[in-house]
Amino acid sequence: MPKYVPIKVIDRFRKSGRREESFSLKRLLVGDPLATSQAAHQRISKTVALAVFSSDALSSVAYATEEILLALSLGGTAAMAYGLPVAACVTVLLCIVAISYRQTIHAYPSGGGAYIVAKENLGQGPGLVAGAALLVDYVLTVAVSIAAGVAAITSAFPALYSHRVLLGVAMVFFITVANLRGIRESGALFAPPTYFFVFSLGTLILVGLFRTEVLGMSTPAPPPVETVESLGILLLLRAFASGCTALTGVEAISNAVPAFREPESKNAAATLAWMAGILGFLFMGSTLLAHRLHIVPKTEETVLSQLAHSIFGTGILYYLVQVATALILILAANTSFADFPRLSSLLARDGFLPRQLAVRGDRLVFSNGIFVLGLLAIFLLAIFRGETHAIIPLYAVGVFLSFTLSQLGMVRHWYDNQEPGWQIRMIVNLTGGLTTGVVMVVIAGSKFVHGAWVVVVLIPVLVVGFKGIKNHYAFVAKELSLEGYRPKAPAGHAVVVLISGVHRGVLEALQYARALSPNVTAVSVEIDPQATERIRERWKEWGMGIPLTVLKSSYRSVVKPLLDYLDDFQERNPNMVVTVVLPEFIASRWWHHLLHNQTAFLIKGALLFHPGVFVTSVPHHLGKA
Amino acid sequence: MPKYVPIKVIDRFRKSGRREESFSLKRLLVGDPLATSQAAHQRISKTVALAVFSSDALSSVAYATEEILLALSLGGTAAMAYGLPVAACVTVLLCIVAISYRQTIHAYPSGGGAYIVAKENLGQGPGLVAGAALLVDYVLTVAVSIAAGVAAITSAFPALYSHRVLLGVAMVFFITVANLRGIRESGALFAPPTYFFVFSLGTLILVGLFRTEVLGMSTPAPPPVETVESLGILLLLRAFASGCTALTGVEAISNAVPAFREPESKNAAATLAWMAGILGFLFMGSTLLAHRLHIVPKTEETVLSQLAHSIFGTGILYYLVQVATALILILAANTSFADFPRLSSLLARDGFLPRQLAVRGDRLVFSNGIFVLGLLAIFLLAIFRGETHAIIPLYAVGVFLSFTLSQLGMVRHWYDNQEPGWQIRMIVNLTGGLTTGVVMVVIAGSKFVHGAWVVVVLIPVLVVGFKGIKNHYAFVAKELSLEGYRPKAPAGHAVVVLISGVHRGVLEALQYARALSPNVTAVSVEIDPQATERIRERWKEWGMGIPLTVLKSSYRSVVKPLLDYLDDFQERNPNMVVTVVLPEFIASRWWHHLLHNQTAFLIKGALLFHPGVFVTSVPHHLGKA
Repeated sequence: MPKYVPIKVIDRFRKSGRREESFSLKRLLVGDPLATSQAAHQRISKTVALAVFSSDALSSVAYATEEILLALSLGGTAAMAYGLPVAACVTVLLCIVAISYRQTIHAYPSGGGAYIVAKENLGQGPGLVAGAALLVDYVLTVAVSIAAGVAAITSAFPALYSHRVLLGVAMVFFITVANLRGIRESGALFAPPTYFFVFSLGTLILVGLFRTEVLGMSTPAPPPVETVESLGILLLLRAFASGCTALTGVEAISNAVPAFREPESKNAAATLAWMAGILGFLFMGSTLLAHRLHIVPKTEETVLSQLAHSIFGTGILYYLVQVATALILILAANTSFADFPRLSSLLARDGFLPRQLAVRGDRLVFSNGIFVLGLLAIFLLAIFRGETHAIIPLYAVGVFLSFTLSQLGMVRHWYDNQEPGWQIRMIVNLTGGLTTGVVMVVIAGSKFVHGAWVVVVLIPVLVVGFKGIKNHYAFVAKELSLEGYRPKAPAGHAVVVLISGVHRGVLEALQYARALSPNVTAVSVEIDPQATERIRERWKEWGMGIPLTVLKSSYRSVVKPLLDYLDDFQERNPNMVVTVVLPEFIASRWWHHLLHNQTAFLIKGALLFHPGVFVTSVPHHLGKA
Repeated sequence: MPKYVPIKVIDRFRKSGRREESFSLKRLLVGDPLATSQAAHQRISKTVALAVFSSDALSSVAYATEEILLALSLGGTAAMAYGLPVAACVTVLLCIVAISYRQTIHAYPSGGGAYIVAKENLGQGPGLVAGAALLVDYVLTVAVSIAAGVAAITSAFPALYSHRVLLGVAMVFFITVANLRGIRESGALFAPPTYFFVFSLGTLILVGLFRTEVLGMSTPAPPPVETVESLGILLLLRAFASGCTALTGVEAISNAVPAFREPESKNAAATLAWMAGILGFLFMGSTLLAHRLHIVPKTEETVLSQLAHSIFGTGILYYLVQVATALILILAANTSFADFPRLSSLLARDGFLPRQLAVRGDRLVFSNGIFVLGLLAIFLLAIFRGETHAIIPLYAVGVFLSFTLSQLGMVRHWYDNQEPGWQIRMIVNLTGGLTTGVVMVVIAGSKFVHGAWVVVVLIPVLVVGFKGIKNHYAFVAKELSLEGYRPKAPAGHAVVVLISGVHRGVLEALQYARALSPNVTAVSVEIDPQATERIRERWKEWGMGIPLTVLKSSYRSVVKPLLDYLDDFQERNPNMVVTVVLPEFIASRWWHHLLHNQTAFLIKGALLFHPGVFVTSVPHHLGKA
């Protein structure tokens, strides 16, 4: 082999930008492509970070209280009184999880998502389980948040209730396109709606508590609630499991430590504490108010909307609360559009998901992941008819599974590193991990028949899928390996041109064939003997001296005689490379293709599986000659 | 150019049948392919011909009386009495049409369908109108017959009524598959059901008339029918138009003259007379009986089933009538599966429909036409929820349009030929043509808003479509014409191999490229500079001395830099042929393709529209190396 191999690098052409991109729907929706060099990072302050990373967690207030009351309402009027203690248990759980995650922030300043923490400390298997749980989780976050956001709107405008699926799908579509354009998690976008929500819901709670407590506002008599089940431990567990949806999104800050200003970990931990405090206040406050005002869940109006109606009447303040709720829920859905593509790109880079998920698109975002997430969320909204309550039972299992694995991973982390104070830290994370583990089992058990089984089945299936994909890539890499490979030069090259007549397109193909090799044969498959006669006659004039072989086809198939001929040819000429040249029409309108035989397509398909034979189309562009 | 050009014909290979066809659903449903030489013709006797070609016409009895009564029922109890005179008018029309078509049989012993007669005598335009009307008609025959056949079954088994669409679709599916297998119009298959129907319905009518007339069977009191519209000329015209569906299928024998034993025309004419007689008897008989028994149409039970119930009670005789009715209706649908593909192959051969419709499939039938007809019929059944009455208004317009054109064509035929006695014949056909023309206008007018408008719009649209297709083919033929064509030899041949790494698949592609040309360049598009670095290193060892060009892509697109490179290359080397070689994976399972980038596919699509550049894939079969 020659020692010198010329390698040339071309950056731009003499006339760059010559290729005008035509107007397209994709460009209109998604915008012009961004250069790789335009990727940039920005650091954000605690105030902004609280808004950016808390929308998912805070928005849970919009449905968590309602889910508790819904579960309890099966037990009748008496059971409704247990709303407060159940909510208190959830709040205690929130404190445990928040304290536990503070430690993750300090241990993983580069960002410690459950997948990374579980993989690094517990090994590949638990890592993949955490990854699967998170992916399921992100999809459900979008579906639940959008369904709840739509419910906030339809509570205020009941006429829209029957269009809720369409509204939800439109919102997901809008968020998907915004993310394909490459929306940044910018403070300017996120801070106003989040603080607006905190402020308006906080005001509602404070005003409400003030009126009921201090002014002694006359509360309505508790409406009678029909008893469906007797009040027992199972009902209380189900109510608690429903309330645990309040914790979804709490882990977000621990993933995002590098986005904080220095000192990153300290700032992130402080933000986490603030978030947990605000979340606890809003959640407990709204549950307490619902209890005082004897709110009972209804199908067409959310509990939050009922609260706002009771306190603010039907004026502007009521509508502000509903708008703020809808907005923060949309933001919450949007956070999944950053998390899902990011996690799936990590999994894809590790070979557990298709590689296309690790490729940045035109706008520097992981477009394929965004697209897949949007589709799945729309699918869920359609299947569950846009009802928040129907999707919720699938939701919390995955969340608590990833909490558990992440914290047990931290336990292992402290044990392995044994830094000063590791015993305390290990105990904190162990408490967190065990608590969330028990809660996960409670949720999976009490909600199993209501839908949690789907997730219990789906997560192992996903993990098996991840491993199958990894095996496939490993197999391909081995197949393509050059170890022990000795290139074998072919014994020669023959070209076969398939013709169906003698016309301009065929002659162009013959000319191309002659440029490839001096060893050219034309082959025609005879369906109709009269057509063969016409070809024979014209071949004498136009055949360029190329030998023509006619294959009789008694079954009117073009493909089979051709394959037989090639088999025969290869048998007589072993180790010879054969190129089949197909003259093909390219019509100027797509429907013109319906007017021509698709034989070329069939032949290409058949020859794809024929070793040693290669196919080239010689297109003749109709209407351009 | 050389004078001697070798032309070789290969009929079979040394080892024929080597290529084992794998088991497939298609083979199971459709059967093994038949050789072209297996096509055969058989002649049939009058008795068998009557069965084979009359099922469509005779089966109309199953719905024609019912449609008259349905139309009249809007006029209340008094209007129902007009059933008999309306049916008598339809029978007179039947006689006129039958006499008129007898002449076509004599004039076109090779088969005179409306398309051929109209085209030959009136010109292309009227021929295409007749063709469009017939195609629409054949589709509607399938939909109406199957809907009525299902109604016969659900009248006997009312529990099946709610599954009527499914039943109808299953029947169309069954008939489609049977025809794709190449069912012959064999007497053995057709004669028993047709004669069974004639016999059982005939018995019903005779027994019924005997009982009511001679034995003075007590008839029930006429049930009150609510008056929706006042009885007027319009209502009577609508009833008449509805009754004209009895004539559908009458023209079948005139298409099929060559299938008769000698003397063909005489035998065919006699068969036509017999058919018209039997049809007239069954139609008038059942209308008369319905009148005597004061039958009123119901949604869930057909008029014929009510008649059979009244006369035969609920015993075996009743069920025999229903089975016979369902069977003949299925046969009637089946005749369209012979007619539609035959006519569309004629239109396709003349260039008015896509050529694929003129190609005989594996089993020597026009598979594409059969397939299209099956799909359209299923579509109609689904849209109209399997209700005969809903499809009927679309039906008769096309039938009478083709009657009219066919007979006016005959008028022209006699005028042009002026054989002895041509004046009488011309007057007969003119009477027939004018009568059916008037009836067509009556049908189109009185049923316009009920659905006839669809056909009135569709037929011109189809004719414009036919002409558009013809123009396209003419344009292509002109484009491909060799008149004035001077082949221009290319100035040289260069090969570009697109690589994304250095592995076994790429080396196979490089070897193929070297077999094509000594002028080979490898091109790699740089998305990730680290990958380029790896390629550079390995290229020195494995690059076979082939120069490598790296194209930087700042927007992460592979296609655009490659197109720019090729543009640039072609500008510097005008008139040179360029082959782009793409190494490509062929996975052993289809879903494995989801795990690999589809870049090769995108590149092929883009280069298809790039003149002077030809693409060849070099497949690497995963799991087969």
